[in-house]
Amino acid sequence: MRIGIFDSGIGGLTVHRELARALPGHDLIYLGDTARVPYGTRSPETVIRYSFAVASYLAESGAEAVVIACNTATTHALPALEAAGHAAGIKVFGVVEPGVDAAVAAHHTGAIAVLGTEGTIRGQAYQKALAKRLPAASVAAVPCPLLVPLAEEGWLTGEVPTAVAERYLGHLRGTIDTAILGCTHYPLFKPVIAEVLPGVTLVDSAESTAHAVRDALGPGTGLGGQRFVVTDHIDRFQRVGEQFLGARPDPVDWVDVGPPRGVFALD
Amino acid sequence: MRIGIFDSGIGGLTVHRELARALPGHDLIYLGDTARVPYGTRSPETVIRYSFAVASYLAESGAEAVVIACNTATTHALPALEAAGHAAGIKVFGVVEPGVDAAVAAHHTGAIAVLGTEGTIRGQAYQKALAKRLPAASVAAVPCPLLVPLAEEGWLTGEVPTAVAERYLGHLRGTIDTAILGCTHYPLFKPVIAEVLPGVTLVDSAESTAHAVRDALGPGTGLGGQRFVVTDHIDRFQRVGEQFLGARPDPVDWVDVGPPRGVFALD
Repeated sequence: MRIGIFDSGIGGLTVHRELARALPGHDLIYLGDTARVPYGTRSPETVIRYSFAVASYLAESGAEAVVIACNTATTHALPALEAAGHAAGIKVFGVVEPGVDAAVAAHHTGAIAVLGTEGTIRGQAYQKALAKRLPAASVAAVPCPLLVPLAEEGWLTGEVPTAVAERYLGHLRGTIDTAILGCTHYPLFKPVIAEVLPGVTLVDSAESTAHAVRDALGPGTGLGGQRFVVTDHIDRFQRVGEQFLGARPDPVDWVDVGPPRGVFALD
Repeated sequence: MRIGIFDSGIGGLTVHRELARALPGHDLIYLGDTARVPYGTRSPETVIRYSFAVASYLAESGAEAVVIACNTATTHALPALEAAGHAAGIKVFGVVEPGVDAAVAAHHTGAIAVLGTEGTIRGQAYQKALAKRLPAASVAAVPCPLLVPLAEEGWLTGEVPTAVAERYLGHLRGTIDTAILGCTHYPLFKPVIAEVLPGVTLVDSAESTAHAVRDALGPGTGLGGQRFVVTDHIDRFQRVGEQFLGARPDPVDWVDVGPPRGVFALD
């Protein structure tokens, strides 16, 4: 099967990496919407429009399943994309539910933090899913918008990320036992976050998402081909993407995704 | 006269403020392309396409002059926008030449730094203009991409911006006498940058650009009406924009700028 994966940019490569590990027999096509990154500070309407445009491109490229490897896009666009895909037999997966499942399995005290972009936190998808699964949970939702540009700059350790993490998260120390890294960029800061929040279990939804997709689709029987496409600079994506993917993304092509259309047309 | 001003987002409000001071008798319409911010990490082709789309909207809104209040867009799109506008009698101004003029007037030793986004620094517009005006100058060009998201987060002083400025600029200490703040967001960090680079003259191109536009158009004889339009969240623009403009931008409307067309059509 061909699986389409998309993110606003580079962060979703952490999900791509886990999918390639968990589903070695499926072909993966990753689209990074780097001309319109970041989604995290944009309005729900804008994120929905961008997500449908990207999904249209993936469907036209033969994707029979779509993984939204972006927490903001999952928060705003998953229900609508699921509904549109369902009519055409295209399964759509998000990263929020698997992350919540993992947090529910990991926590001891019900004191859970969700770290994400402004859009993800305001969109409340994590808070709602946690309230449904663990009504007694006490959830602290903390937007950490600077972690995305910090990751894209490659500043993953040292004084600046430590000071940023302290400013966003220091007040949580001693108050939570589990934190969901609710943005695909954040797993790169695990060491820094672990230093600011000692003893806290950090839930990385990339891995739990890959397991959920494998449970639904099986590991596949093909050769596991991979392709990467972006809507802006190829060179920047390859250079910065290496630390997200664990290897240089290659080959990478540029595409113009065009407007929402076909299966994923918007009214 | 109606003057259109545009930026990728909020930073250009520093230029808008100076234009309103210097040209009190012109109507100003400011467009922040917040659905597609930031321009600074995007490719020249993408920035040109976005700039022509925005200029098309401003021309249709009656702008008889256009100020590109964005260093990245000036770097990549000024010559092409000037040529297109010239045919229709629309004057187009950028922020690079006025900043260079101010640096040429301010320096003593010829050791000048240019601080900007990745796109501005790679595009070499400042370096080329300085080489033409001061062939003997020694120019250090330093990309400081994190300063834009830091400004948009409102973290203008304290440990994080100081650590970021030190990491980008500490190596310049004692080697330059003048630094051009080659991004409209950077004037907000003047106190922090002055601490990292004591004794260095910081050139803010917003002010010099406003003077250049006044020299060309005169101060005007109208009532100085102002309007703001954005391509995404109105509330975020008003909230974050206040510290750039010195007052809450109001009124603000949402627009879809559409594709490049008319005077500013692209081939």
